[in-house]
Amino acid sequence: MPITTADKPKKILLLNGPNLNLLGERQPEIYGQTTLPEIIALVRQRVAQADRGLEVEDFQSNHEGHLIDFIQARRKQTCGIIINPGALTHSSIALRDCLAALDGVPIIEVHLSNIYAREEFRHHSYIAPIARGQITGFGPKGYLLGLEALLDLI
Amino acid sequence: MPITTADKPKKILLLNGPNLNLLGERQPEIYGQTTLPEIIALVRQRVAQADRGLEVEDFQSNHEGHLIDFIQARRKQTCGIIINPGALTHSSIALRDCLAALDGVPIIEVHLSNIYAREEFRHHSYIAPIARGQITGFGPKGYLLGLEALLDLI
Amino acid sequence: MPITTADKPKKILLLNGPNLNLLGERQPEIYGQTTLPEIIALVRQRVAQADRGLEVEDFQSNHEGHLIDFIQARRKQTCGIIINPGALTHSSIALRDCLAALDGVPIIEVHLSNIYAREEFRHHSYIAPIARGQITGFGPKGYLLGLEALLDLI
Amino acid sequence: MPITTADKPKKILLLNGPNLNLLGERQPEIYGQTTLPEIIALVRQRVAQADRGLEVEDFQSNHEGHLIDFIQARRKQTCGIIINPGALTHSSIALRDCLAALDGVPIIEVHLSNIYAREEFRHHSYIAPIARGQITGFGPKGYLLGLEALLDLI
Amino acid sequence: MPITTADKPKKILLLNGPNLNLLGERQPEIYGQTTLPEIIALVRQRVAQADRGLEVEDFQSNHEGHLIDFIQARRKQTCGIIINPGALTHSSIALRDCLAALDGVPIIEVHLSNIYAREEFRHHSYIAPIARGQITGFGPKGYLLGLEALLDLI
Amino acid sequence: MPITTADKPKKILLLNGPNLNLLGERQPEIYGQTTLPEIIALVRQRVAQADRGLEVEDFQSNHEGHLIDFIQARRKQTCGIIINPGALTHSSIALRDCLAALDGVPIIEVHLSNIYAREEFRHHSYIAPIARGQITGFGPKGYLLGLEALLDLI
Amino acid sequence: MPITTADKPKKILLLNGPNLNLLGERQPEIYGQTTLPEIIALVRQRVAQADRGLEVEDFQSNHEGHLIDFIQARRKQTCGIIINPGALTHSSIALRDCLAALDGVPIIEVHLSNIYAREEFRHHSYIAPIARGQITGFGPKGYLLGLEALLDLI
Amino acid sequence: MPITTADKPKKILLLNGPNLNLLGERQPEIYGQTTLPEIIALVRQRVAQADRGLEVEDFQSNHEGHLIDFIQARRKQTCGIIINPGALTHSSIALRDCLAALDGVPIIEVHLSNIYAREEFRHHSYIAPIARGQITGFGPKGYLLGLEALLDLI
Amino acid sequence: MPITTADKPKKILLLNGPNLNLLGERQPEIYGQTTLPEIIALVRQRVAQADRGLEVEDFQSNHEGHLIDFIQARRKQTCGIIINPGALTHSSIALRDCLAALDGVPIIEVHLSNIYAREEFRHHSYIAPIARGQITGFGPKGYLLGLEALLDLI
Amino acid sequence: MPITTADKPKKILLLNGPNLNLLGERQPEIYGQTTLPEIIALVRQRVAQADRGLEVEDFQSNHEGHLIDFIQARRKQTCGIIINPGALTHSSIALRDCLAALDGVPIIEVHLSNIYAREEFRHHSYIAPIARGQITGFGPKGYLLGLEALLDLI
Amino acid sequence: MPITTADKPKKILLLNGPNLNLLGERQPEIYGQTTLPEIIALVRQRVAQADRGLEVEDFQSNHEGHLIDFIQARRKQTCGIIINPGALTHSSIALRDCLAALDGVPIIEVHLSNIYAREEFRHHSYIAPIARGQITGFGPKGYLLGLEALLDLI
Amino acid sequence: MPITTADKPKKILLLNGPNLNLLGERQPEIYGQTTLPEIIALVRQRVAQADRGLEVEDFQSNHEGHLIDFIQARRKQTCGIIINPGALTHSSIALRDCLAALDGVPIIEVHLSNIYAREEFRHHSYIAPIARGQITGFGPKGYLLGLEALLDLI
Repeated sequence: MPITTADKPKKILLLNGPNLNLLGERQPEIYGQTTLPEIIALVRQRVAQADRGLEVEDFQSNHEGHLIDFIQARRKQTCGIIINPGALTHSSIALRDCLAALDGVPIIEVHLSNIYAREEFRHHSYIAPIARGQITGFGPKGYLLGLEALLDLI
Repeated sequence: MPITTADKPKKILLLNGPNLNLLGERQPEIYGQTTLPEIIALVRQRVAQADRGLEVEDFQSNHEGHLIDFIQARRKQTCGIIINPGALTHSSIALRDCLAALDGVPIIEVHLSNIYAREEFRHHSYIAPIARGQITGFGPKGYLLGLEALLDLI
Repeated sequence: MPITTADKPKKILLLNGPNLNLLGERQPEIYGQTTLPEIIALVRQRVAQADRGLEVEDFQSNHEGHLIDFIQARRKQTCGIIINPGALTHSSIALRDCLAALDGVPIIEVHLSNIYAREEFRHHSYIAPIARGQITGFGPKGYLLGLEALLDLI
Repeated sequence: MPITTADKPKKILLLNGPNLNLLGERQPEIYGQTTLPEIIALVRQRVAQADRGLEVEDFQSNHEGHLIDFIQARRKQTCGIIINPGALTHSSIALRDCLAALDGVPIIEVHLSNIYAREEFRHHSYIAPIARGQITGFGPKGYLLGLEALLDLI
Repeated sequence: MPITTADKPKKILLLNGPNLNLLGERQPEIYGQTTLPEIIALVRQRVAQADRGLEVEDFQSNHEGHLIDFIQARRKQTCGIIINPGALTHSSIALRDCLAALDGVPIIEVHLSNIYAREEFRHHSYIAPIARGQITGFGPKGYLLGLEALLDLI
Repeated sequence: MPITTADKPKKILLLNGPNLNLLGERQPEIYGQTTLPEIIALVRQRVAQADRGLEVEDFQSNHEGHLIDFIQARRKQTCGIIINPGALTHSSIALRDCLAALDGVPIIEVHLSNIYAREEFRHHSYIAPIARGQITGFGPKGYLLGLEALLDLI
Repeated sequence: MPITTADKPKKILLLNGPNLNLLGERQPEIYGQTTLPEIIALVRQRVAQADRGLEVEDFQSNHEGHLIDFIQARRKQTCGIIINPGALTHSSIALRDCLAALDGVPIIEVHLSNIYAREEFRHHSYIAPIARGQITGFGPKGYLLGLEALLDLI
Repeated sequence: MPITTADKPKKILLLNGPNLNLLGERQPEIYGQTTLPEIIALVRQRVAQADRGLEVEDFQSNHEGHLIDFIQARRKQTCGIIINPGALTHSSIALRDCLAALDGVPIIEVHLSNIYAREEFRHHSYIAPIARGQITGFGPKGYLLGLEALLDLI
Repeated sequence: MPITTADKPKKILLLNGPNLNLLGERQPEIYGQTTLPEIIALVRQRVAQADRGLEVEDFQSNHEGHLIDFIQARRKQTCGIIINPGALTHSSIALRDCLAALDGVPIIEVHLSNIYAREEFRHHSYIAPIARGQITGFGPKGYLLGLEALLDLI
Repeated sequence: MPITTADKPKKILLLNGPNLNLLGERQPEIYGQTTLPEIIALVRQRVAQADRGLEVEDFQSNHEGHLIDFIQARRKQTCGIIINPGALTHSSIALRDCLAALDGVPIIEVHLSNIYAREEFRHHSYIAPIARGQITGFGPKGYLLGLEALLDLI
Repeated sequence: MPITTADKPKKILLLNGPNLNLLGERQPEIYGQTTLPEIIALVRQRVAQADRGLEVEDFQSNHEGHLIDFIQARRKQTCGIIINPGALTHSSIALRDCLAALDGVPIIEVHLSNIYAREEFRHHSYIAPIARGQITGFGPKGYLLGLEALLDLI
Repeated sequence: MPITTADKPKKILLLNGPNLNLLGERQPEIYGQTTLPEIIALVRQRVAQADRGLEVEDFQSNHEGHLIDFIQARRKQTCGIIINPGALTHSSIALRDCLAALDGVPIIEVHLSNIYAREEFRHHSYIAPIARGQITGFGPKGYLLGLEALLDLI
């Protein structure tokens, strides 16, 4: 039985890993003054503008396990993911496997800072090889760029 | 004072790490159609058949911490462990240390897929050096083989 | 003497390295059917829309030396760079040094394909550490995302 | 408005990572017979003796995420940290980033055993480069030495 | 012309590499007291029990070349292989190539000891990537577990 | 519309990278006394003998970029390539990508000297993995052997 | 006393390492349908045509030791060697030493497949540094090309 | 004949390697203004307070050899060592061997700066694996902490 | 026929690689205010003073290929080379081979900055092993020192 | 039942690996003119002189497998081994395992040439860690030195 | 109180590490016939010519410790250092630290031979990153070139 | 003027590096009970027996520099060296260079323990490549074996 439009997954997950809840508050001279809620609001607003029947669900956690639980629970309803895995980028194979299990759902990896201009251990991402693409170094703007990329792919 | 038979630990822990709850559902063409509950049932059934007064307690979690909490809480009652640590195999020193603290309790490491035929980062296991042995590549059957090995060792 | 607005550099350089002139023509099933001229037209159109008095100058070359000559010659007039260095990404320290000499001019590194899902030698970029940020994996769309990022930074 | 003495952060966090709750119980011939509660009591007692208006808050967890949550929640009240990250020492970039966000708060890394006399993967610490200093190999005494160092720095 | 059941290959090869002929005799406190002939007898007995028309042919050699000759000579009659390549595991590409030439015939790699708890040069297997799976650390029992796995796959 | 024989590409490109124009002149005691023009003449003569309607176009350059321009410009007319990339063998990803874009056109990599008996940095070739084959160590004769291989493949 | 023509070694050894006896039979879609005897016949025929009083002696073995014995026994009669060492290419220092002991006798290393486009462990050859040259990737044709190279060198 | 208390070794060696004589004088803004004699005085004072019949002998040298001579000459009288090996930490196997020959005598390794936050070659210590423990990053205070640790161990 | 003094090569090549044309202009606070033409003038002046019938020919290019063309064209007339290869130092095997073909002509490698105090990829030079010597870190003065060295060697 | 002197193993095995049968014949200017039979005679003569009831059994083979067979067959009669494993030194784990199974029997590793002054792959020995000692670089004399060492150890 | 010219440090240290006292005597065909005293005389003569009130103090030692003692003792009087650390270049962190403590005093590293054309372990210098610059490969002349560089910097 | 027999160097240097003066005293259960003076006496006695007009001069030092001074001072009188460099084996390039300067004088490297069965950093010797040979693992006997080797070479 064919999937009708009404059945199509409509959720965009906006995921943030460890310590990203500190945005805006922590070292504002470096990370800028935009907070995570403000970023989320901007993303939601742009999705609303797009008027394509998509909805954003956001989640931040300092727990690898909660991020995985959250993603698994929404597997069937998700049509795209924007994720800034924070430090888990460089260490979490479990998060990679969880995302890789969503075959066909485009995943956009976003980093606020330019990870390639920082310590060497930040140059490697376990997520990148299973993501559609990666956007690094543009601060909060990166999420909106990622959203544009995602809207094109859905 | 000697430990009498009645005092001997009787639990077999059947542990599964991140994303193994998706078994059967996720990419059935690759991982087969057996679900994790079905695997657990098969293991329980075989233990019952063995009729040695052993009991199985199973636990799956996407959280490294919950797996460790779970194991610690049952340290005194455990006589054997069958564990498929999933992605934690390759990254969790904490899980290794927790298992290593159960000196004398045999630990069987099981993997559904042949990790040596996949990405290079899956070839290394932090668990293997402190396990009794490892069984990889035989799908759900691997748990039953692991159980046979364990029954021999207890 | 203060720099007046009229004196400010106004050029955005849109640079493409070796083999990117083949876009659209070569393996369209992989790289899509958009040609480099079409990408350039899209970028120009968006800059025109922005109506900020900026002008785009584009250049593609299979020669590391010509790219460097081109950038050097426009050092004083350039306010931003979008560059897909192609294979030079992974080998050209000379291009890096040339770009690094434009202190303060934001550089956006773009890749059509997801370089982190390809051969290992494509995972390292000599350009990334001196760029503002990097966008990989979104095909032609990546140039437009890079432009948005750049417009924010100028 | 200047920060008056009354406003100054007064908390010393005494943090312990995975499996450290087993201290005293697990392999007493190796790790000694002091339990974690006993160590905590010794630290509290010494802080009380110092009579500097400081208070100790302790926390042990087998979950990287809970440790990060706990630290973040006390960012504003914390003037010093003594942490034995256990196995997370060698794997948790997220914990490092969380601690690094507490700029200016001195962090003391403590290990019971001499990690440099054990397996090679225990020789590297993600925490050490952002800590003030590290004390390894002195068993429970190490926490008290760390406290002395900390009292000097606050 | 279709292959009838009668034509199907029926041999299970039970192969053992260098020094495994010393089993039982050499360092019995480590390797146990079971000899290789006893292991072979156990495997044969289980195959007989299975009553599936399968036959076991065993071979041990200290010569890489003889193992390859033996396998090649039985290519057409073989439906499954249980192999403990001994030290050749870590060095013989020729044995790997020979086994890889038996496309579709499941290969089970068995090791008596836990190779991952020994010298680092024993952690790598040239055979594993082309085997169906690997069983390590369970002593003679490992062969029987391997046989169970194989019976499932044939 | 089917491609008729008349439409089939007919060019064999005979390409030589940096410093190969010095052949014969430079250190004749090592490289022999045959010059590059003489090698080209031998190749042309043999192609003429083969009498298959093929034509040879040769090109030597010390510029990576010119080699790429040259190859790109003849993409549609080329049925085979014999290339001695000289030092670019070990450093030019751009040349590799350019050659890889000629899907289906057989590429023969030739080296005059035995690169595996020289400095370690000469042991790796970026071209080899996308070539059909490689011939090293036979001096000018290598081009003729490469041509024989190519004639077989066209 | 001068060596007269009559005394000069006249044998060309045509050597093949492990598993090459399976040629033609094994995976013909990959390795083609030419068998090793057919290849040998082609080589013999070409040597006969050359009419230079040379004779071909061929040998294939799955045993490193037999190859070495064979070569040693013909040291005094050999004027050239064409060898496809198969898997021994990447592991046999003994074979290298044996060949290196034939100072002045040209050795041609041949591989059917392009070893540089396969697994990384196949990229290194212990034979290449002591051979005159190497020919890879041209299937059975490679032996004939190797023979041409050899006839030039004798 | 039993060793009576009177016979027990009573010396604590306080050793400092190359360039530590410059303390206080060199870059006081970094290393503080405490000189080595002042540190030694603090250590002596604390040992006197402890009133355990222990005596401190201090030695600083820029010569690896003199440090070894000094330690060897006091082997029989030494009950504990506090050593800041300075740059020899990372290069002197001879010093390690000399210290390792004092089996049973506890060795405390002290570093003024946090060596894990400096150049990578300072991260490795040849002394650490044979020391009881290591204290890094607390400046002159580190010696006193080391002494406390040592007093506990003697 | 003997080479008379009149026939001896008399040219000193003064070569500069990519981006060195920006000297003086680019970041004068770092690289000083001397321009490349000024450096060239100083070198010419000193050669004139030496009054040995030598002439200087200078060349700067951002193109590896042009540098090679230039050197090849003057092979017969050149008696010494002073070269600052810029970024090509670390990547150009072709430039190395070109220079190595000038057997007997002394080559002096000069770097303005101390490459050993910069990024690790700048520590390796492909040119150094085939040069007579290297001078690094003395700014424009380095060229004059190189010239003195060269005058001694010619 | 106690082992009487009469029962004690009395054999000294004098083993030589691949290509050592060529000694004296091959490159006498390098390896000297002593042949392997002559070396064996010298060893036998010295053992006879020692007059301790010991007997020498010698064996040379180009086959790893034959060496292992030979050693295994004499396990019970052997009191010492002098082995020059030739190229197997660097590659044979099987030979190592075979020798390691002779617990308590002293093994002396001898090399004619100084392996540490040759190619890097000859610097590592799989045999050395399980041998009593190693003697390299003294030509045939090395066997006699090894014998002296062995006579001391038996 | 300002430092008057009279107070300014005036010493140039001319330092030579292990084995450099053998210059001229050892292998004159390689190192030339100039002895160290002769080199020192040349340097002194040139400094006298410069007539800037500078004085040269030279020191050679085979002892790392004596070199450090010597430098430390002259810290306050030194305005520049020319050092050929000999073999200590590649191993002495203590010498590096000693030199690095002379902040602001320019250090010139000199090597007689071209260390980049010798064994790989000679390619790395612990001194270079803290020196102003390095001069290698020009024999005794290198000291004079280093002096010219130094006179420019003082 | 020819060197007459009377002029030939006659000294054998018997050198021992750091910590070897502790022999016999330190851990006798491991290193045996022979002291260094006893070893020296044995060597002297054997040289006397040889009656070849040779004399032994022995020297032990914990100082790299003293060893080098000692060797240099006896360069002209030395005909052979037996050296156990102790820990300097693995770190002293200066000692290597000093020994290498004695061209033609045979150097015998001796180690009491089997360095290849110890920590990995002890597997590499800077001395071995410039020594004639190496003897490891035979305790004091190794010096006598080394002497026999040396007597053969002088």
